Amino acid sequence: MLNPCTPDFLATLPAGTVRAPDARHLDEPRGRWTGQAGGVALPRSVDEVAQVVRACAAARVGIVPWGGGTGLVGGQVMPGGPAPLLLSLERMAGLRGAWAEESAMAVEAGMTLARVQAAAEGIGGMFPLTLASEGTATIGGNLATNAGGTHVLRYGNVRALCLGVEAVLADGSVHHGLTRLHKDNAGYALRDLLIGSEGTLGIITAATLRVVPRPAEVAVALLAVPSPAAALALLALAEGRLPGLVSAFELISGVGLGFLAETMPEVRVPLVAPWSVLVELGLPAALPAAAAMEGLAMAAAEAGLATDAVIAASGVQAAQFWAVREAIPLANRRIGAVSSHDISLPLSALPAFIDRADAAIAGIGAFRVNCFGHLGDGNLHYNVFPVAGRSRADHEGQREAVKTAVHDLVAAMGGSVAAEHGVGRLKVADLERYGDPAKLAAMRAIKAALDPLGILNPGAVLRQG
Amino acid sequence: MLNPCTPDFLATLPAGTVRAPDARHLDEPRGRWTGQAGGVALPRSVDEVAQVVRACAAARVGIVPWGGGTGLVGGQVMPGGPAPLLLSLERMAGLRGAWAEESAMAVEAGMTLARVQAAAEGIGGMFPLTLASEGTATIGGNLATNAGGTHVLRYGNVRALCLGVEAVLADGSVHHGLTRLHKDNAGYALRDLLIGSEGTLGIITAATLRVVPRPAEVAVALLAVPSPAAALALLALAEGRLPGLVSAFELISGVGLGFLAETMPEVRVPLVAPWSVLVELGLPAALPAAAAMEGLAMAAAEAGLATDAVIAASGVQAAQFWAVREAIPLANRRIGAVSSHDISLPLSALPAFIDRADAAIAGIGAFRVNCFGHLGDGNLHYNVFPVAGRSRADHEGQREAVKTAVHDLVAAMGGSVAAEHGVGRLKVADLERYGDPAKLAAMRAIKAALDPLGILNPGAVLRQG
Repeated sequence: MLNPCTPDFLATLPAGTVRAPDARHLDEPRGRWTGQAGGVALPRSVDEVAQVVRACAAARVGIVPWGGGTGLVGGQVMPGGPAPLLLSLERMAGLRGAWAEESAMAVEAGMTLARVQAAAEGIGGMFPLTLASEGTATIGGNLATNAGGTHVLRYGNVRALCLGVEAVLADGSVHHGLTRLHKDNAGYALRDLLIGSEGTLGIITAATLRVVPRPAEVAVALLAVPSPAAALALLALAEGRLPGLVSAFELISGVGLGFLAETMPEVRVPLVAPWSVLVELGLPAALPAAAAMEGLAMAAAEAGLATDAVIAASGVQAAQFWAVREAIPLANRRIGAVSSHDISLPLSALPAFIDRADAAIAGIGAFRVNCFGHLGDGNLHYNVFPVAGRSRADHEGQREAVKTAVHDLVAAMGGSVAAEHGVGRLKVADLERYGDPAKLAAMRAIKAALDPLGILNPGAVLRQG
Repeated sequence: MLNPCTPDFLATLPAGTVRAPDARHLDEPRGRWTGQAGGVALPRSVDEVAQVVRACAAARVGIVPWGGGTGLVGGQVMPGGPAPLLLSLERMAGLRGAWAEESAMAVEAGMTLARVQAAAEGIGGMFPLTLASEGTATIGGNLATNAGGTHVLRYGNVRALCLGVEAVLADGSVHHGLTRLHKDNAGYALRDLLIGSEGTLGIITAATLRVVPRPAEVAVALLAVPSPAAALALLALAEGRLPGLVSAFELISGVGLGFLAETMPEVRVPLVAPWSVLVELGLPAALPAAAAMEGLAMAAAEAGLATDAVIAASGVQAAQFWAVREAIPLANRRIGAVSSHDISLPLSALPAFIDRADAAIAGIGAFRVNCFGHLGDGNLHYNVFPVAGRSRADHEGQREAVKTAVHDLVAAMGGSVAAEHGVGRLKVADLERYGDPAKLAAMRAIKAALDPLGILNPGAVLRQG
């Protein structure tokens, strides 16, 4: 059993590292939970992080690592149990190094993703992880949750962009793993294990990251497609014509565009259709963007995979197209979802999933479904809303049934109910219900081995033992 | 303590799965060790693998998983200790499924890499892992060692090409992880942990793999470069001009070309220089190969980064260029290395490393160094040979000093002494010497948690406790 974080305990932490928690430390974006904390530690160095962790281990006080607070599954808030210590990395936000000639940099965990992107630009490249919350989310939180976003199709999740990590383990030892190697098979993939473990196996304090060359030419278009199946065929067409050069492929539902018209009429929508895709190509200088996108749009039209297309004629217009896609989550929030689902499926199962999920939801009641997102990764946000004139409160009693119907179907079709946001505290029971039993047993064994006292982010990912 | 694999024990295994070991099961390519085994189990299904593992756990008999036997670090042979059971996956070599429309396939672990490549071609794509031993090496062994090869620069190590694994864990439970998802954050990265664990944490029995589109146009050239530093600048130039389209970038040393002339005069070498690079571009149809490569070669010449170039005019010629690169390891074997090193370094450290390593080696004695390999990944094979007229036997007493000098320097410069071949049994002591202590402690804790009896590949990666 853990002990609460008390004033007496706080007095044992390194001088100048402790504060009372602010509201931002205890709230989370979806407003589901309010966290609690005996205090917030704000260490200034990896040594201070290690001291804090050792103190927590000695006193058996739980630690909730805190990045930018933007997580959507409650990994950063602990609403019940003995009050934990929040450990914020916000004072460790420096650039440790940058190597333009090898397209790499080393950053501290508390740096916001936007500043990481700027640092990459500073050495003439690009850090391709792109998220709506990038101005607030930190790279440490991104790594802890193996963040995804809109450019995974081309560049992978953040795990694929990380060369090495420095991390404090549960006994206060420091893993000095800030290597800049593209091939290293010297032992188990501890880096990959820590990434995505949501602070339950160690606290990432810094990371070495890949920087990629910025494509000379970028083309963005919105294409109306007859169906999700046609959208997938269009993706295959694009990948076949331009292998490795399709940077983003996002599905947009007409329902989402309706939400925009309803709640954010100021957003200009250049193409309205029941289904459309936003396609981004990143091309070398030798391959002019306009011609490449026009060729793709024409081939798509000839194959019956696109019924309409608008191609951005400038960078400003490209940004407007992206603004449509990026406004959809905000419009969703204004409408108020009954239940939101961050799911992934095998690509070829997506069209059937959408049909079957729609039918299952319709069997529960009258809803509007906004199904959108990272089609190229098989990762959709399948979100269920009240019909016009009704509110989420009217469906309080159906929320669980909706979620279960969607998640059961995802699991039955070989998908994941925790695609890019992670498990946090929201999906612990889902993981128990849908997870592979042998994997769950292995996860519990790993957790017990690396954090035998259970002090690291108690109750996140795995139920506290 | 483990027990030996005896005839009585073999009698407890599933009927029809046991044979006596052949020579191929006990030899390894470098001839350093001869393995031993009480028997070989050749299960036909994952259930039979699980039965074998459960029997081994009950009797505390060690298991050495065996793929194609091509590993270069002794991970597949156990020369001492209680005789283990060899577990060969050779009868599990089927294609479980192929999904052309989503560029994925599921294969059993015993399928050779060449057959995996053919299966990918069968659905219109390409499996980009490319190794000299691909006709014999199995995908299970590739995954167990996180194999690299010549196309990592563009497509990543095999870990990046694997979507999911089926694996038998040390208690005989089966992890059913053959998902085909590009985003899945439902719990810890068990897949990534099993990949590269060299059979010490579980036995991979099948995997789902990514298939990538085959580039429409392929361009191959050999370029003479003034120095390794110039080669790196040329790589940056190529990546900047053609982001994401450079498929391979291999360094070739004039010493290696000399070995070819000495031992394999039948190999036609189109370009002889103290340092050269083999560059492969994989391009879309819209970007003709010849023009792209000529443009790159011209830009390189103008920047002083290339002093000579030959561009393959046909697929046949491209294959001849690759044959030069691929013959070098064979020529090395004919010369007979005093010590071979599979190392990686931060890219920007490579030129200084080569200079400093050459100086250190010269301080030990008179040698020839053939330093070649996957420059784009920072992964070199820095191999040390006798001068003409002397043999490796003449340097028996210096081998350890040579190895230590190279490895110490690699470690001091932030590199890895186990870049792509893994640790096996060859580099257990190196890992102890150079590995991060916190990582090593975490690895030991993970091993004890997932294989408490220590039956899985005893003594590989980590010293048997």
